[in-house]
Amino acid sequence: MSARNLSRLAVIFAAACLCGLVNARVVTKSSYLAYDDAKSGARPGVLVVPEWWGLNDYVKSRARQLAEMGYVAFAADMYGDAKVTRDPKQAQEWSSAVGNGGLMAPRSKAALEVLKEQPQTDKSKLAAIGFCFGGSTVLQLAYSGEPLAATVTFHGGLMAPKEDQLSQIKSPILILHGAEDGFVKPETIDQVRTSLDKAKVDWYLVTYAHAVHAFSNPDANSFKIPGIGYNEKAARRSWAEMQDFFKEQFARK
Amino acid sequence: MSARNLSRLAVIFAAACLCGLVNARVVTKSSYLAYDDAKSGARPGVLVVPEWWGLNDYVKSRARQLAEMGYVAFAADMYGDAKVTRDPKQAQEWSSAVGNGGLMAPRSKAALEVLKEQPQTDKSKLAAIGFCFGGSTVLQLAYSGEPLAATVTFHGGLMAPKEDQLSQIKSPILILHGAEDGFVKPETIDQVRTSLDKAKVDWYLVTYAHAVHAFSNPDANSFKIPGIGYNEKAARRSWAEMQDFFKEQFARK
Repeated sequence: MSARNLSRLAVIFAAACLCGLVNARVVTKSSYLAYDDAKSGARPGVLVVPEWWGLNDYVKSRARQLAEMGYVAFAADMYGDAKVTRDPKQAQEWSSAVGNGGLMAPRSKAALEVLKEQPQTDKSKLAAIGFCFGGSTVLQLAYSGEPLAATVTFHGGLMAPKEDQLSQIKSPILILHGAEDGFVKPETIDQVRTSLDKAKVDWYLVTYAHAVHAFSNPDANSFKIPGIGYNEKAARRSWAEMQDFFKEQFARK
Repeated sequence: MSARNLSRLAVIFAAACLCGLVNARVVTKSSYLAYDDAKSGARPGVLVVPEWWGLNDYVKSRARQLAEMGYVAFAADMYGDAKVTRDPKQAQEWSSAVGNGGLMAPRSKAALEVLKEQPQTDKSKLAAIGFCFGGSTVLQLAYSGEPLAATVTFHGGLMAPKEDQLSQIKSPILILHGAEDGFVKPETIDQVRTSLDKAKVDWYLVTYAHAVHAFSNPDANSFKIPGIGYNEKAARRSWAEMQDFFKEQFARK
């Protein structure tokens, strides 16, 4: 199946999703849906949350890969209007507005609801993955109590759940982390581990040698930002890791 | 293919391997070879080093699993005379004699040579895995400069390579570790990471929540030792991790 055979999100989604969901309009107007239309029947759905750059080609390519693996993939437009940038200041502004505004969980939740409404989606088998800012976002979605079969963060900005969130976390969590990621302090990782243990969450953490922030993105080096770079081994291994995790978790229900 | 179809190490090995290798007699008299005899042609070889209990049923079952996956697996008898125990004091005595005697690398190297001599083994594709004490052993084998395609430690006693070993390490290393493993201090993990980075080794580390020492061994709880226990999720995930690593590394050559 070539990428050309993958269906994209049509404008009809905007109409389909203005159904009372907080922030639904933002994420659905220009989000990106990919599935194999040669395949029939419902299949597991994977929400994909982009890096702080917005819904760019990289994250769309990941959605298509997931579709090729047999999933319905929905890459969320977290900023609305398909806003994309290569300017870190702009990306910082947009992502901070979402993060500081407490919108990570509600917007990704709204996107998840859209994914669930797709006729191709098996609603009982849902996962969320995210890259960098998107990794933080899917963590927040999991921390909000969303009963995802799997939550996966690729070089995500990590943060521990708040005390009052501990009892509500239901999703197992896979943390894919670059050993040289200067955007995440070692003590933050310790805090995340301690909190997730306290919450009795099923988590595991993979630490890739020599990998920095954004290691999974083949375009990372083009941004020419210190501490951001592609690592081919970590990219391949982390993607395989996610696949194993999905197979395990989607087989459970 | 059932376990019954797997060939075991015959006594002829003892004769085949008394060929000048240090410690070869120890490891070959009673070691355990497993491969699928319905399969023809050379295939990658995997050295398997047991926990400090010796060459027990658990490690033999892992060798058979590897054979079922299409590899030649050679589980080394690190103590000689097929000595096996369930008594931690005895295990401590035997394993310390090997460890303190500097015999981890030479004995496992001798076993590796036996594995290489098997007609079923593709000598260009060799890996070593080990459990607990065996994990320490395969690390020492890698630190000694053995050009293994992959080295994997399951809940191994971890230690950093010595300064004079840094330049000779050639094998990529996968460390599978229980987050609650009280036998490995966090600072030891930091030392291992720092040293392997300095040595420019390709390594990655998987940390499994709620898993203690010996997490991969379904019999672990039967020893009734505090801090030692089976963890089904970590066992399954770590085994899958090893398989992915093998596929990646054996495809390279």
